[in-house]
Amino acid sequence: MFQILHQDKKTASRLGVLETRHGKIQTPCFMPVGTQGTVKTLSCQDLNLCGVEMILANAYHLFLRPGIEVIKNIGGLHKFIGWDKSILTDSGGYQVFSLAILRKITDEGVEFQSHIDGTKYFFSPELVIEIQTNLGSDIIVPLDECVHYPCSKDYAKIAMERSINWARRSKIFYEDIKKTDPNQQLIFGIIQGASYLDLRKLCAKEIVEIGFDGYALGGFSVGEPQILRYNIISSLLEDLPENRPRYLMGLGSPPEILDSVEMGIDLFDCVMPTRYGRNGTAFTSQGKITVRNAIFSKDLNPLDKNCDCYTCKNFSRAYLRHLFNAKEMLGPRLVSFHNVYFYLNLMRKIRTAISQDRFKEFKEEFLSQYNNSPS
Amino acid sequence: MFQILHQDKKTASRLGVLETRHGKIQTPCFMPVGTQGTVKTLSCQDLNLCGVEMILANAYHLFLRPGIEVIKNIGGLHKFIGWDKSILTDSGGYQVFSLAILRKITDEGVEFQSHIDGTKYFFSPELVIEIQTNLGSDIIVPLDECVHYPCSKDYAKIAMERSINWARRSKIFYEDIKKTDPNQQLIFGIIQGASYLDLRKLCAKEIVEIGFDGYALGGFSVGEPQILRYNIISSLLEDLPENRPRYLMGLGSPPEILDSVEMGIDLFDCVMPTRYGRNGTAFTSQGKITVRNAIFSKDLNPLDKNCDCYTCKNFSRAYLRHLFNAKEMLGPRLVSFHNVYFYLNLMRKIRTAISQDRFKEFKEEFLSQYNNSPS
Repeated sequence: MFQILHQDKKTASRLGVLETRHGKIQTPCFMPVGTQGTVKTLSCQDLNLCGVEMILANAYHLFLRPGIEVIKNIGGLHKFIGWDKSILTDSGGYQVFSLAILRKITDEGVEFQSHIDGTKYFFSPELVIEIQTNLGSDIIVPLDECVHYPCSKDYAKIAMERSINWARRSKIFYEDIKKTDPNQQLIFGIIQGASYLDLRKLCAKEIVEIGFDGYALGGFSVGEPQILRYNIISSLLEDLPENRPRYLMGLGSPPEILDSVEMGIDLFDCVMPTRYGRNGTAFTSQGKITVRNAIFSKDLNPLDKNCDCYTCKNFSRAYLRHLFNAKEMLGPRLVSFHNVYFYLNLMRKIRTAISQDRFKEFKEEFLSQYNNSPS
Repeated sequence: MFQILHQDKKTASRLGVLETRHGKIQTPCFMPVGTQGTVKTLSCQDLNLCGVEMILANAYHLFLRPGIEVIKNIGGLHKFIGWDKSILTDSGGYQVFSLAILRKITDEGVEFQSHIDGTKYFFSPELVIEIQTNLGSDIIVPLDECVHYPCSKDYAKIAMERSINWARRSKIFYEDIKKTDPNQQLIFGIIQGASYLDLRKLCAKEIVEIGFDGYALGGFSVGEPQILRYNIISSLLEDLPENRPRYLMGLGSPPEILDSVEMGIDLFDCVMPTRYGRNGTAFTSQGKITVRNAIFSKDLNPLDKNCDCYTCKNFSRAYLRHLFNAKEMLGPRLVSFHNVYFYLNLMRKIRTAISQDRFKEFKEEFLSQYNNSPS
């Protein structure tokens, strides 16, 4: 299911291939975020042109709207959204604790009200697995309790223990489902523990003992200092089995991705390329540029001279700036496309560099250009 | 420049080919509207997939934003927007009289304030030709004065006479430009005269005398009864040279297009497919459906079972409804794509029918299905 093809000689970065029932995924891999069953502004054709092999969708959002029955009736999430490659679904734990109106958290589960219309629901770990089974995503994760930053150690411990308990129940429930329906979904465990290294390591130990197909690091990039995060991640990775994929949830910028690959992370998801793209900021080999700005109104250059995506091959910054200025939807669409292409291209370059034992050099070259950011 | 390939035996409809410096256009032809240099939500790739051969852009909008200098510097409108097929530019007369804050109309031209930021400008017929020459569109039209419906006959006459005068000046100015720059743009004359047949016929006579590469019927679909409009159009067409293309500006619905083709119209433009698409209404062989409606929330069918566009081949009404419901941009994009495809496909079918002398039968078949509209 997961194979490490090459281990970089100078860093912990590794080249791998992860196989799901919808195909093979080259790692390190970046997943664009399709929260509501669409990677914002982009079609599946666009995703294929960018070389996307897996996207992330969100069980909480899809449960509320359009509802699981609708998606199940049509034959699952892949068919519903017209995407025939892999999908990882997030449990929605993070959304329940950030978007929804919280009612009550107990060891049994969480009662909440929809952020859309206030309807009351109850998520148990078992229900969340069932939802993801009905969606038919390729990789599923257990419900967990996400805490804010900063969070007291006492509460972080309570939430962590609850998440471990829920992970155990999720695994048992999922094994039961598999007995009658060997559908080959993969299930990843999530490691929580806020910004406390000892809690994180304790959690990792327990989650690994339960045993999952891969391990996700959750609850990062919630406001903690980057150095603290990196210290925890690098220490945590020592405790994870080498032969299982490691997924850093919700990150990050290109430099953060490079740092994390260097530590041995295999999978990423992040809203940055699409959220920034929608707002007129492009990632380029020379750093970020905000193409909405008036300075680009007569700029005949493409977003990135080193990029061969559809946007860069056909349109000037002046045109893109015009589209944003005139509030034309094609603007967000073209810059989102470029950004996703840029991220996927970065991952391709990362994989090539690892295969040649020159990840470290590649990272330095990339950053020396990227950090000359004009914006 | 324009060749009639076949005249339908039973109606006035005709099959033709119009050649511009950016290629050949099969007529009857529908032009999607790209007011601000983009057909809303769609890329040029999308337009090519729909079979679009010419789009319409607006001189007034592009003059205000991003400004003609920007577009000229980049090498013209085609290069700016990444479109290598034909472009017809509307003079913007209609927009000056509907969107802008009008200051003063004289025989010299029109003084107005931008609807965007209130800046004062003056459009003379000569300037409007110069703008379109700088844009480098393939077909240009003179500035004209558009009146509202209803409009007194006295004022309609004044506006019409002014438009004829402006058309004459535009032609003279354009002939002068051509002497030094034989750039092969085509120039169409516009026939005004509000809803008064005698004024319309007078105007047609004068405009034809000045002599243009094609003739546009302007100032329709502003609120006049359809029967009145059809009477005027059919009578007017008798006064236009048969061997020149005829362009009905700003129309229309599929039935209106069929009616107008039957009378002998060759060119159309209309915001309907994109405006309706953005708002979640699709044109189908069974009439219009508003896919936003809750009734479609579990509907596994495509928008139109008889359509083979990307949207219909890949997505259910339930998914499209979900996208609109979740305010995802992909919704407007996919339905706009379908609608433009639908219109272009209708034009293809119309041309095939004319070539087989069965336009009348085709129209009846189409309408018998279309008028069983479920919405």
